[in-house]
Amino acid sequence: MSAVLDLTLDLIRRRSVTPDDAGCQAMLGERLGRVGFKVEHLRFGEVDNLWATHGDGGPLLVFLGHTDVVPTGPEADWRSPPFEPEIRDGLLYGRGAADMKGSVAAMAVALEQFVLAHPGHKGRVGFLMTSDEEGPTNLDGVRRVAAHFRETCERIDWCVVGEPSSKSRLGDLIRVGRRGSLSGTLDVHGVQGHVAYPEKAKNPIHALAPALAELTAERWDEGNADFPPTSFQVSNIHAGTGATNVIPGALQALINFRFSTASRADDLRARVHAVLDRHGVDYDLAWNLSGEPFLSLSGGVLRSTVVQVCRDLCGVEPEQSTGGGTSDGRFIAPLGAEVVELGPVNATIHKVDECVAVADLEKLPALYYAICERLLA
Amino acid sequence: MSAVLDLTLDLIRRRSVTPDDAGCQAMLGERLGRVGFKVEHLRFGEVDNLWATHGDGGPLLVFLGHTDVVPTGPEADWRSPPFEPEIRDGLLYGRGAADMKGSVAAMAVALEQFVLAHPGHKGRVGFLMTSDEEGPTNLDGVRRVAAHFRETCERIDWCVVGEPSSKSRLGDLIRVGRRGSLSGTLDVHGVQGHVAYPEKAKNPIHALAPALAELTAERWDEGNADFPPTSFQVSNIHAGTGATNVIPGALQALINFRFSTASRADDLRARVHAVLDRHGVDYDLAWNLSGEPFLSLSGGVLRSTVVQVCRDLCGVEPEQSTGGGTSDGRFIAPLGAEVVELGPVNATIHKVDECVAVADLEKLPALYYAICERLLA
Repeated sequence: MSAVLDLTLDLIRRRSVTPDDAGCQAMLGERLGRVGFKVEHLRFGEVDNLWATHGDGGPLLVFLGHTDVVPTGPEADWRSPPFEPEIRDGLLYGRGAADMKGSVAAMAVALEQFVLAHPGHKGRVGFLMTSDEEGPTNLDGVRRVAAHFRETCERIDWCVVGEPSSKSRLGDLIRVGRRGSLSGTLDVHGVQGHVAYPEKAKNPIHALAPALAELTAERWDEGNADFPPTSFQVSNIHAGTGATNVIPGALQALINFRFSTASRADDLRARVHAVLDRHGVDYDLAWNLSGEPFLSLSGGVLRSTVVQVCRDLCGVEPEQSTGGGTSDGRFIAPLGAEVVELGPVNATIHKVDECVAVADLEKLPALYYAICERLLA
Repeated sequence: MSAVLDLTLDLIRRRSVTPDDAGCQAMLGERLGRVGFKVEHLRFGEVDNLWATHGDGGPLLVFLGHTDVVPTGPEADWRSPPFEPEIRDGLLYGRGAADMKGSVAAMAVALEQFVLAHPGHKGRVGFLMTSDEEGPTNLDGVRRVAAHFRETCERIDWCVVGEPSSKSRLGDLIRVGRRGSLSGTLDVHGVQGHVAYPEKAKNPIHALAPALAELTAERWDEGNADFPPTSFQVSNIHAGTGATNVIPGALQALINFRFSTASRADDLRARVHAVLDRHGVDYDLAWNLSGEPFLSLSGGVLRSTVVQVCRDLCGVEPEQSTGGGTSDGRFIAPLGAEVVELGPVNATIHKVDECVAVADLEKLPALYYAICERLLA
């Protein structure tokens, strides 16, 4: 059995549902410590984070991943138990096989091989793991580690995220950035009353309606070469208690922007307030900026290197995408890092019978190894 | 103790929360039977209805009321128990004192006195009670009785409803009509998806927004001399499961028109559909017409009589209003009847410590008696 397959099986057997690391990081830290990495365990709240580095200064290349997995759903729905990895027809099944214990194992194995082959490599390599990537808030994961890095003046030049980026074959898509995510909780204040006496009430649904029409019709920006236009969505709207003869006294709506580098979060916020104010809506609006957009510029050293590695080792021209949701890369990019995401095919992630092709898994360490070698050998 | 006060106390002591009549109508029917009324008990489903008439043809004057009351809320919040009537400082307290056991007693006493004083009166007088006025559907109350009257070809010329119409002193306001009520349940169909991929989803909130803005801004009619303009209210709107990253697949809104005789229900319905269709909304819309508007025309015999009775017996010029919600008069008006509502002060109805002024209660039979006398003596 190969080192990467062996390590992946070991990781899948650990029931590390967010935020439980289930010993993954202790084992990984011990392995990397044995080949000369300096290892720190950064535990914040219920979350484990592992930070292992090798080298003596100069540019820092970090491999970023997470040891936690999403819940399995009903285990009986799986053909084989989700925490008992099984290979069938060239596919390795198990929760986290693709998202992202396969990548974690591949990154660890690649780093072991790289420092053994190049003990005096240029710059530094780092290995950063969290057990809080799949949870709802990510407060104590990479967000918190990035704050720690700011305090310790740790500067990262390049960051490879092992998220499963590929569409149908390994290396056919890499993420070269992500849109930002800006959420808001909008509370519209009205005055409750009887529907027969609307003049004595103030209907928050009616008060919001023209502003809502304007907000949902707005074109926020035109996007740019790397990003589609910013999108705005109202995910929830609720007013009324079910009674048909009562004008409700309050309305709540949840809104979300996925925004490109063509817009700034502050400007989007200001524009929403301007529309609501212009229509005389009486409201409170609490914002949550869960991630700024980030982009590895065309011609960036890491982006060029990863593209070339996909061409050379996978024989494909990778699509360079900024689509999809957010990733932990959003916390690392603001440290000044160029961030690129490369990992296995994502077709089965978060689903029953999650799996990764064994052939892809076997090839993945070579991709990460090549990135190290081309940047730091 | 006067006959009307005595009868009101007896009625309040009966816990006749909708649809339970608690024996009120049996007692009232027996009383009217003793003075020569022909009495019918019309029970439909769980609802009791009493129909008592006196006279031999010619114009029919009906007194309409209900024996049911709304729930008390926490009885401990009442200064005296809601079903144990108590007089304090000239006010009679108890659930139903104002809405409308006081009126019911006054109408019964007035009719007793009228047929005893005028055994050979012109036309007919009728006394119609239901135990399903305060409930949510009113299916088996006066709505059902009116259908029965259609089958039996019972024609009503004039109808006095004993609902508490007065504002601050007895007779200062009478209802000469009511707006219609037209409700709709609007289901907007979308396609659920992830907020990061709006192009793969169809947000029903966004789809509805421009139509909603238009509907809430619309001026449906200008009203007329007797009615304020038709009003449109969205009482409920709900979409989304609380998840902030999911575009909802469906939206439901409840809408209601209170409409004047300046608009027809069919036209209002058609105009709502036109707006939704023009904006390309994918929807279902189920309508419920709970009442057509009705109006006692200025110069109508009953309206003129009731106005003059208020002037003569109460010494006030009554406001002739079409405001407020609906009443059971909406079921009687379509039978061809002129409908006017006159009853005590409504300040405490549906509230804790509901009460009626004893002096008003003592005067009320004289008002109803005068209406009988001026129309049929």
